[in-house]
Amino acid sequence: MIGVGRKARAASLLMAQADTARKDTALLAMADAIEQSASQLVSANSKDLESGARHGLDDALQDRLTLNEQRIAAMAEGLRQIAALTDPVGEISHLAYRPSGIKVGRMRVPLGVIGIIYESRPNVTADAAGLCLKAGNAAILRGGSEALHSNQAISQCIQQGLEKAGLPHDAIQVIETTDRAAVDELLVMKDYVDVIVPRGGKGLIEHVINVSQIPIIKHLHGVCHVYIDDKADIKKAIDIAFNAKTQRYGTCNTMETLLVAQDVAERLLPELAGMYQAEGVELRGCKQTCDIVTGIREASDEDWDTEYLAPILSIRIVTGLDEAIEHIHIHGSNHTDAIVTEDIGRARRFVREVDSSSVMVNASTRFADGYEYGLGAEIGISTDKLHARGPVGLEGLTSQKYVVFGDGHIRQ
Amino acid sequence: MIGVGRKARAASLLMAQADTARKDTALLAMADAIEQSASQLVSANSKDLESGARHGLDDALQDRLTLNEQRIAAMAEGLRQIAALTDPVGEISHLAYRPSGIKVGRMRVPLGVIGIIYESRPNVTADAAGLCLKAGNAAILRGGSEALHSNQAISQCIQQGLEKAGLPHDAIQVIETTDRAAVDELLVMKDYVDVIVPRGGKGLIEHVINVSQIPIIKHLHGVCHVYIDDKADIKKAIDIAFNAKTQRYGTCNTMETLLVAQDVAERLLPELAGMYQAEGVELRGCKQTCDIVTGIREASDEDWDTEYLAPILSIRIVTGLDEAIEHIHIHGSNHTDAIVTEDIGRARRFVREVDSSSVMVNASTRFADGYEYGLGAEIGISTDKLHARGPVGLEGLTSQKYVVFGDGHIRQ
Repeated sequence: MIGVGRKARAASLLMAQADTARKDTALLAMADAIEQSASQLVSANSKDLESGARHGLDDALQDRLTLNEQRIAAMAEGLRQIAALTDPVGEISHLAYRPSGIKVGRMRVPLGVIGIIYESRPNVTADAAGLCLKAGNAAILRGGSEALHSNQAISQCIQQGLEKAGLPHDAIQVIETTDRAAVDELLVMKDYVDVIVPRGGKGLIEHVINVSQIPIIKHLHGVCHVYIDDKADIKKAIDIAFNAKTQRYGTCNTMETLLVAQDVAERLLPELAGMYQAEGVELRGCKQTCDIVTGIREASDEDWDTEYLAPILSIRIVTGLDEAIEHIHIHGSNHTDAIVTEDIGRARRFVREVDSSSVMVNASTRFADGYEYGLGAEIGISTDKLHARGPVGLEGLTSQKYVVFGDGHIRQ
Repeated sequence: MIGVGRKARAASLLMAQADTARKDTALLAMADAIEQSASQLVSANSKDLESGARHGLDDALQDRLTLNEQRIAAMAEGLRQIAALTDPVGEISHLAYRPSGIKVGRMRVPLGVIGIIYESRPNVTADAAGLCLKAGNAAILRGGSEALHSNQAISQCIQQGLEKAGLPHDAIQVIETTDRAAVDELLVMKDYVDVIVPRGGKGLIEHVINVSQIPIIKHLHGVCHVYIDDKADIKKAIDIAFNAKTQRYGTCNTMETLLVAQDVAERLLPELAGMYQAEGVELRGCKQTCDIVTGIREASDEDWDTEYLAPILSIRIVTGLDEAIEHIHIHGSNHTDAIVTEDIGRARRFVREVDSSSVMVNASTRFADGYEYGLGAEIGISTDKLHARGPVGLEGLTSQKYVVFGDGHIRQ
């Protein structure tokens, strides 16, 4: 792996100099190659699917692993969209004269070498390669062993794109070993890798946190809340709470716990509970909730800390805003939390006091997403406080250095 | 130390809500308390100085440790300057409607709890406390054992300021134990501390890097370069190269290696060498340099990687820009590097290709400083790529979260 790191570092110096047109040429050529290789991709993918079936992968995982025509087209389209995004590299901001006469600004530059560790979904190979490349970085991609053949086939398309644009082929290296030790080696190569982005289940992320000597951009889990205030508009509250849970179950920005102010609980919960149940969502409630919505299971202590990623929702009745914020501080994961209220003072307090990567007023938590925020594609969502927070797009894959322009200026 | 962490975390929630006027009141009251306690500070400091003398601290360290009237006034003035800076907390930027109808922006928020580990200079206690407080954070300050009495006396002034403003006294905790194990405990309290800022010698920084499980804002060392191009204006080149070395020797932004294009070396080096030698700077040169400047010691391989922090300078003659950039890539520390040239294309290449936290054209490396850049006071200089890079002021002690405003918006 040291050899991989060394080659990535060397390539990163060339990538940092690559101009926008060259990078976009590579991205568009990759997209073309992926479309033209659709049948090879499907056949490589079928090997992974057969092996998955032999190893007893469950249906959800097999589904994530699957590459079909539609998904292949989406991968190509994703790369074209990245080509269309503004190149962040080289932008100079805050440029201003200082009293000494020097002119000081900040210049956006690539991070260098980015290591991405991910599971099952082979489309991450194309997405991650595209984002890293456009931001002027070199990337080391290590997908799951279950997607090995698919990732190799995508890697060939990536290489065709790099070659066509005259960019170094080490700029994107897809690791072909399925040896788990290779991941651990990658995580300590701090001379060659500038940041690690792990994407996958909690087990993977925790392992990366424990082993890595390199800074990480990550979110561990998403226990997202919607708090329905007693000053909420009931229709908006029902729409948002229903959407935040049921629009998709397996995503990190899906609501897992609904908090309801006690003064509106009786007006609102019976209808909302009926909607959830009609949709097949299992409800677990605090004692008070169970009194209003009969026949549901009482939530355990563990429920309040659980990211279900499934049609299950825990519901707690709180006295008001203070208790809601306290609950989120204790049980939340600093991912995405929303308040539904018509009261501007309470909205203001919620926005200020809830310390999450996205804080929302009268909107569904499902909006926490790079596309919805206008960043274009995202490499992941960060719940860390340093560097990037929330959805991480191209800008999160760059850094800013200071640039100083003088004309013989010396310090007095 | 866990108790300290828990108290800091609790205080950080209150600090994040504290309004600007309250924070400024605390800062101004701290400044007043420091001025009014000048005699107590001097007498506490004299205990540290006596103990330092007993333990054989060298003159440079004793000097750094010393608090006199002038330095006490400077500490108070520093706090008043921090009070005068714009409060970064709460600023919302990039607020714009998205096609879905939601309005998305980024809100600047405190980081939370900041742990600062530093050596000798007691003024860091006041500076660091002031910066952390203004940015809405709680701080845990752990100074060197050699400054214990001085730091305790400053801590009392800080507490008076917090009390006067009605802010929690746990917002700034100055650790009073001299037990080194306390530092290591602090470095693994990742549930209670959001970022660690080590300030001190290379030994301290390396120890923190090895032990910390918390993200760090740091620079390890500063091996800064000035490259004099063959298209340089000779007068500017001499002014800048002389200033970058001799304006102060012990600072991290002082030039340690001078690179000179071979075509101008003979015109420039004899005069410049004479100026350095008149100033008492020891010169060490590559073979070619030794041919031009006779009687100086030849630089060893180690010299090119050394941060002297002393009146010593290594000089290397290079063929031109390419070799200069390559030398900086190999031997630099990503801190501050400057080119002297009148050629716009070469300046452009140097700015783009040198991957340092500050890159300069025709200006002395000594400008790399929070005050000179207009940030106000700085908590340190970062040579990391993630989060803050270069001088770290108030903004580097904050983070940005996404805020989303809707009116019942749900995701389709």
